[in-house]
Amino acid sequence: MSLADLRVEIGAVNDLLCASSVLVWDSRTMMPKGAAEARGHQIASVIEAARARLMGAGTARAMEGALREIEGLPSDAAAVREVEAVRRALAFHARTPADLLRRKAELRAAANGAWIEARASNRFDLFEPYLARTVALSREYAAAIGGGGHPYDALIGLYEPGETVASLRALFETLRAGIRPLLDRAASAPEPRLDVLRRSFPAERQRDFARTIAAAFGYDFDRGRLDFTVHPFEISFTRADVRITMRRAETFDPPSIFGGFHEAGHGLYEQNVDEAYTRTALATDLVGLYGVGGTSFGAHESQSRLWENHVGRSARFWARHFPDLRAAFPDALADMNADAFHAAVTHVRPGLIRTDADELTYDLHIMLRVELEARLIAGEIGARDVPAAWNEAMRRDLGREVPSDAMGCLQDIHWSSGMIGSFCTYTIGNVMAAQLFETAVRDARIVQGLDSGDYAPLNHWLREAVWRHGRRFTREEILAQATGRGLDPAPYLAHLAARYGA
Amino acid sequence: MSLADLRVEIGAVNDLLCASSVLVWDSRTMMPKGAAEARGHQIASVIEAARARLMGAGTARAMEGALREIEGLPSDAAAVREVEAVRRALAFHARTPADLLRRKAELRAAANGAWIEARASNRFDLFEPYLARTVALSREYAAAIGGGGHPYDALIGLYEPGETVASLRALFETLRAGIRPLLDRAASAPEPRLDVLRRSFPAERQRDFARTIAAAFGYDFDRGRLDFTVHPFEISFTRADVRITMRRAETFDPPSIFGGFHEAGHGLYEQNVDEAYTRTALATDLVGLYGVGGTSFGAHESQSRLWENHVGRSARFWARHFPDLRAAFPDALADMNADAFHAAVTHVRPGLIRTDADELTYDLHIMLRVELEARLIAGEIGARDVPAAWNEAMRRDLGREVPSDAMGCLQDIHWSSGMIGSFCTYTIGNVMAAQLFETAVRDARIVQGLDSGDYAPLNHWLREAVWRHGRRFTREEILAQATGRGLDPAPYLAHLAARYGA
Repeated sequence: MSLADLRVEIGAVNDLLCASSVLVWDSRTMMPKGAAEARGHQIASVIEAARARLMGAGTARAMEGALREIEGLPSDAAAVREVEAVRRALAFHARTPADLLRRKAELRAAANGAWIEARASNRFDLFEPYLARTVALSREYAAAIGGGGHPYDALIGLYEPGETVASLRALFETLRAGIRPLLDRAASAPEPRLDVLRRSFPAERQRDFARTIAAAFGYDFDRGRLDFTVHPFEISFTRADVRITMRRAETFDPPSIFGGFHEAGHGLYEQNVDEAYTRTALATDLVGLYGVGGTSFGAHESQSRLWENHVGRSARFWARHFPDLRAAFPDALADMNADAFHAAVTHVRPGLIRTDADELTYDLHIMLRVELEARLIAGEIGARDVPAAWNEAMRRDLGREVPSDAMGCLQDIHWSSGMIGSFCTYTIGNVMAAQLFETAVRDARIVQGLDSGDYAPLNHWLREAVWRHGRRFTREEILAQATGRGLDPAPYLAHLAARYGA
Repeated sequence: MSLADLRVEIGAVNDLLCASSVLVWDSRTMMPKGAAEARGHQIASVIEAARARLMGAGTARAMEGALREIEGLPSDAAAVREVEAVRRALAFHARTPADLLRRKAELRAAANGAWIEARASNRFDLFEPYLARTVALSREYAAAIGGGGHPYDALIGLYEPGETVASLRALFETLRAGIRPLLDRAASAPEPRLDVLRRSFPAERQRDFARTIAAAFGYDFDRGRLDFTVHPFEISFTRADVRITMRRAETFDPPSIFGGFHEAGHGLYEQNVDEAYTRTALATDLVGLYGVGGTSFGAHESQSRLWENHVGRSARFWARHFPDLRAAFPDALADMNADAFHAAVTHVRPGLIRTDADELTYDLHIMLRVELEARLIAGEIGARDVPAAWNEAMRRDLGREVPSDAMGCLQDIHWSSGMIGSFCTYTIGNVMAAQLFETAVRDARIVQGLDSGDYAPLNHWLREAVWRHGRRFTREEILAQATGRGLDPAPYLAHLAARYGA
């Protein structure tokens, strides 16, 4: 038994996890509404089969030979990282009970339905018992994972290995100190023309525009597709099939065209993982049981944010592409120019909804959620305390009164999906994006490309620095190799100051 | 351990098989072209996981209790049939080697690509080695299944349990004797106006029309959807998600609107299996490893043929619906009436292509294929002999010269999909459809409904007689309960004589 045998087993695990992702994609884009319950069973059984294969005798047997085979190789050799990823996953799943997966899946199916109803009818009480059970199950999960420290740390580690409550609180403090004065300044700035964003932008033409730009960024439509969904997302079934979505909107809603750019950034990461890693542990999250090539959720988000915000929301982008946009929407944009349009799409206004938030206030929404989750998992507050805690934090951090739970603590899908611990990765992604981009634009050819609409140089730099490595290197290793240091909030704050401090 | 435990295991097997079907549906409708190889791996691994779960310790343990639980129940009780289906499947898979599944899947992936290229370039030599390997693997499979008699019988039994080479040859002889004089008569009949079928029928409007009629038949779009594909098909992932397709055509191609009717018939069967059978052995083909509720491929085809031909191709259907069609296609149909249109869509002309064949010649295409497959599996001819044998049979049976292998033995997808043994089910379906329909229309309310466009009475009759039973009863039991006898070609020949003998 050898590494080749191990790859047969992990290949099958990856196949099953990718199959599960196809079921998820289908459920959000194509599935008839009557099929939700059946689909819940199907996804749960496929994930269960993936775990069974991973924990089966075939993997155990193959591991022995694989471990011998990597002896003496450098500690960062791809094969070493590959085998270690399997070993870590085997240890992780040995600690966590098998039936927890199914219980999580069953709760998710029930909680999701309850959340949809609760949000539609603005009745937190309908969701509260499911949130309480989700928190209880997450606490049980965290205890099984172990690791000491704050119990929330174990959950954070599922999405962003290496981060903890303590490290996040330190990061957030730095960010808050930098963002606060920019926000104060933005509040007193004159309002740009925003009416244009509410004019008619036919959805199909928005999609066509997003497709054109995604293709210009380098997203390969022979190995992907772009569809409409209520909540935009990216999902991959190996690098050969990486799908993205955007919101169907008839006005200039950020989750529409900007959502398309954002998801294209995620898609570029997945499409450009080294082909040799396909169906291996270097393109599969064997702990989280997810067929994904990116090394962490935060690293993934750095790519979406980079293309959405550093490229797509820049003045130079609209200087180059505003004429294309006006050609696509001549009626809506007849009286606009690139500068006025850029001012509209970078306008700062503290709001209630995370997914609609501007670049400057976005992280405040994240910090609020991370702090709430930490207190829930620590048992400092219960599910019933969430609305009051939420509303108080919104008042304190964003100066907004929450008019209804539907616009407050019921707005996100995450808790009803059992995803506790993931919110921090959005802010990690923002910070990492700025750090990578700051380094990338030291290359004059990349800047020239951004000015002229040629995204190949930036694409090439990111492919070499980030994408091709898949899960071989940690987020911190990627950052150190590309920028000479670990995660550093300074470039992000500099970016925000440059864009919003003027 | 009990029947309830057995249902947990079989439920998971059904989930996996339905997941595999979602992957198949997606690959034919949505998947980007670069993903074919990855998808092949995914489908193979999901099926492998389904077999592993079925043959695992959980099923074996649960079987003991389940067998005790059904002791003393009548032999046709649903629970008895359910447990017996599992027992049969366990015995089947114990006889057939596990690696055969993966070898079949791998060969299918390679053969399919070779077939596409061979057909496009009209080069049988490119496909011949894959056909030879497919035949060899099928022979190995047949030997493992065993059962005595003709080796082809084992393969037929995968699709149509109970049929054999001998039973099919007897049936075919009867059909041939009845069809031949009708064909001779049709050859000398005056040709109707066919030019209308080549006029412009915009594809989207054809789809809308097919949707309207499918809904009128009773197909539930809350548990289904209709899309375009090159080859129309129906596929289900439990009764809650039953999808159908039709061909995108800009003229009146039979696989477009009539294809929609046909697949809607398949869909009605799946959507109306007793809800209590969902995720059980009564809605899963545990031998063929396919998540399907219909009791045999032939029984399934009887439902598609019944709605396509007995309902959709009838003079009374167009008397009722031609005005709707003309409203949808006013330009193409301005100078047509219902009778002339019906004459066009029931015109008989022996052709080269099975999927374009009229009702009268269709079975001749099937007989040719069944006979060829029987000889291949018996080793009487080899893959290299197929083109000559095909062309000779086309000359003899249909009086047509085959101008190219692309229009001849390379036309069907079945061999490249490893499906040897399934062709007979099309003819079984034709025969069974006529037999059921003949009985159904003894009910005056059903006839009245057909005349007035109210399909609820026929839907109700078929639901009670066929659909709701799922896989509980065999095809022959279904027929005996509904019509008082087993499969009988007389009603089919009477139908053909009534429609084509005038």
